[in-house]
Amino acid sequence: MSLRKLLVDVHTHVYLPRYASVLRSRSNVPRILTRNTPSGWKEDRLLILDDEPTGGRPVGPQYWDREEKLKFMDRHGIDISVVSCANPWLDFLPFSEALILAQHLNADLESYCASGPLVASSAELKRLYGFGLLPLVPGAPADSLSEAVTRLAIEHPHIRGVIIGTRGTGLGLDDSALEPLWAALAETGLVVFLHPHYGVGSQAWGTRDNGHVLPLALGFPFETTTAIARLILAGVLDRHPNLRILLAHSGGALPQLSSRLASCVEHDPVVAGRLAHDVRWYIGRLWFDAVAYGAAELDFVSETIGRAGGYGTDILPSGERGRKLGASRMLFGTDHPFFPPLGETEKWPSVVENLEAIEEVERWSEEDKAGVRARNALTLFGLGSS
Amino acid sequence: MSLRKLLVDVHTHVYLPRYASVLRSRSNVPRILTRNTPSGWKEDRLLILDDEPTGGRPVGPQYWDREEKLKFMDRHGIDISVVSCANPWLDFLPFSEALILAQHLNADLESYCASGPLVASSAELKRLYGFGLLPLVPGAPADSLSEAVTRLAIEHPHIRGVIIGTRGTGLGLDDSALEPLWAALAETGLVVFLHPHYGVGSQAWGTRDNGHVLPLALGFPFETTTAIARLILAGVLDRHPNLRILLAHSGGALPQLSSRLASCVEHDPVVAGRLAHDVRWYIGRLWFDAVAYGAAELDFVSETIGRAGGYGTDILPSGERGRKLGASRMLFGTDHPFFPPLGETEKWPSVVENLEAIEEVERWSEEDKAGVRARNALTLFGLGSS
Repeated sequence: MSLRKLLVDVHTHVYLPRYASVLRSRSNVPRILTRNTPSGWKEDRLLILDDEPTGGRPVGPQYWDREEKLKFMDRHGIDISVVSCANPWLDFLPFSEALILAQHLNADLESYCASGPLVASSAELKRLYGFGLLPLVPGAPADSLSEAVTRLAIEHPHIRGVIIGTRGTGLGLDDSALEPLWAALAETGLVVFLHPHYGVGSQAWGTRDNGHVLPLALGFPFETTTAIARLILAGVLDRHPNLRILLAHSGGALPQLSSRLASCVEHDPVVAGRLAHDVRWYIGRLWFDAVAYGAAELDFVSETIGRAGGYGTDILPSGERGRKLGASRMLFGTDHPFFPPLGETEKWPSVVENLEAIEEVERWSEEDKAGVRARNALTLFGLGSS
Repeated sequence: MSLRKLLVDVHTHVYLPRYASVLRSRSNVPRILTRNTPSGWKEDRLLILDDEPTGGRPVGPQYWDREEKLKFMDRHGIDISVVSCANPWLDFLPFSEALILAQHLNADLESYCASGPLVASSAELKRLYGFGLLPLVPGAPADSLSEAVTRLAIEHPHIRGVIIGTRGTGLGLDDSALEPLWAALAETGLVVFLHPHYGVGSQAWGTRDNGHVLPLALGFPFETTTAIARLILAGVLDRHPNLRILLAHSGGALPQLSSRLASCVEHDPVVAGRLAHDVRWYIGRLWFDAVAYGAAELDFVSETIGRAGGYGTDILPSGERGRKLGASRMLFGTDHPFFPPLGETEKWPSVVENLEAIEEVERWSEEDKAGVRARNALTLFGLGSS
C-alpha cells in the first residue's frame, strides 16, 4: 500500500489495563463503577466529569483491549493509530503517585505499541504509536517534569508525544513555572497533544437535561480555546519556536475567535505590544486534528492557518504560507472509543462524518486530503520515510 | 445615493442620558464612577463587568450624546445606525423598576431616532433606528413581557427590535416560562438582538493580567454560543418559525462548533430525536452580525448558514439555500463606542477591519457584499423600499 493511501488516526484514546484498575479502585470521580442493570446484567459505567450527567456512560473492552482497538481500526480502514490515555490522565493523583504511575503507564504503552502489528505493506511502520503521560499535577517540580520528558523521549521509541490537560500544575498553561517543561518538549521534539477535560462554562448549562451535549459540544472546546489563548498571551510560542502543539477538536473555537482575539489584544492597554506577532500568526504555529464533523469547519480552520504567514513581520519557521500550509497542519482523528453509535451500525457515523468532511473540502487538492488523512501525521510524528 | 451604496450599522450601542444617570447613581457594578486622575483631571470610568479588570474603561459623551454618534457615523461613512442600549441593560433592577425604566427609555429612544436626521438621499429613511428594552429580569411575569413587546411594536415606529441578554428571567433562554415572550416577538416581527454581558468561563481566565482580553474575546462569544445552543436545544426555533434572532459577534463560536453540536446531539440518548432538524439547520434560521474582524470568519459563517438547507427534511422558510442565503443573513456592525483606538487615528481600526473583512470575502459577489453592508439590514428591519 502506498503511503498516499494510508489513514492515520491521531485522536484515539485508551485506558490501559493498569489505568482502568486505578479507576476501578476509586470511590470518587474519575472512576469505573459496576452496577446491576434493571434486567439483571452487570454493567460497567465510566464517570469522569464532575457532575457527570445521567450516571456516566458505558465503558468496556474497547477502552483497554488492544484487539478491540485493532478491530475498530480494521473496520474503519485505519492503518495507524497514535493512541493516548483518555482524560483525566493523572490529574487526580498526588505528584509522587503520578510520577510512578506515569512511568509504568508509559512502559505499558511502549509495549502496547512495540509488540503490536506492522502496517501490512511496510517493514518499518507499526500500526500503533502513542502519546505518553507526564506527572503534570499540582506539586510537580519543574525539573522533574523536564526530566520526565527527556526520559520519555529516550526510553520509549514508539511514544512520539505527550497528551496534557489544561491545568498544568494547577495554575494553567500560562504558568511561568512551566518554562522548563516547554523547553524540554521543544528540545525532544515530542508533540504536545492539548486536550480538554474539565470543561469551561458548566455554570452556564442551565437546569434542562441536555445529557452530555453542552459539556462535550461546548465546554470541551471552550476549555481548549481558553488554554491555548492563555498560552499564546503568555508568550510561550514566542519563547519556544520549536514547540509543537496539536489541538484537540480542531482547536475548539480558537480559529473562529482568532480575529476577535487579535482585535481585543490590539485594543487593550495591558496586553497590546506584548507579543512578537498578531495573535493570528500563532495559529500557523499550531497543529489541529480534523475532528470537527464538517467540511466547512475543516476548510475554515485550514484558512486561518494559511493566513497566519500574512501577519507579523516574520514568515513561519516552515517558510510556508497559504492554503498549502493550512492543509499541512490538520490531521485525521476519530476520538474513539467516545461517540459510539446509539444503534447498531457497521461503521461509526462519527468516523464516517470526519472522513467525509475531509473528502468534501472543496479548496483542498487530492494531495492535501491525502496529507490530512496520513502524510501530515507521518511527518509530524517522524514515522516512516515520508 | 443609491441604496446599494448605503452602510448600515446594526451593532452600535448607547447609554441614553437617563440610563447614564442611573449608572451614576449606583454604588455597585454596573456604575459610572468619577475619579481624579494623577494629573488632576476628573475622569469618568465605566464599570460594567463583575471583577472588572484595571478599573473599568473610560466613558464619555460618545455613549450618550447623539451628536457624537452621528459624528462617528459620518467619519466612517455609516448612513444608518440601529442603536441599542449597551449591556447590562436593566438586568440589575427589580421587575417593578425595570418595567417603568424600560418604558421611559424606549420613549427616549424613539425620540432619539425620530427627531434625528434623514439619510441625505431619502425622503423616508432616517439615520437612526433602535432596538428597545424589555423588563426581562427575575420576577417578570410572562404576560407583562409579551404585553411590553406588543406595546413597543405599536407605540414606537422607529424601534425595530429588542436587545436582550442571555439570562431571561433568571433561568436562561431555554426557560419554558418565556414561551409567551417568543410568541409575542414572532407575532410583532421585532428582531431579537441577542448580546452577551456576563461572560462564560471567568473561572478559567487564570491569574495573569490579560486586561479585558479574555472576558471580551472569549467569555462574550462563549456566552452567546451557550445561550443560543440552549435555545435551539429547547426547541424554541421549532415552535416559533417566525422568530427572528440576530446574534452578536457573528454568533460567537456557534458556527465553528455547530457540527460538533450536531454530532453530540445525535450521540446522546437524552437529546437525540428531540429536535425537528439537525442542529445545523437552525443556523439558517438565524441572522449574524459581521463583527468578527476577519474575512475568513465572515466567509465561514456565511458557509454554515448556506449549508443549513441541506440538513433536515424541510428547506428553510425563505426557500433559499446555499451561499446566497449565507450572505443574506449577515449584517455589518461596529460595536461602537467599544473598542476605541488606543492611539489617535482618523478612523477606528476596529471599524476599518470589519469593513475590509466584508470586502475581502472572495466567495461573496459584489451584490452579496452590498447586502451585508446595507440591504440585509434594510430588509430585516423593514426600512425603506428595499
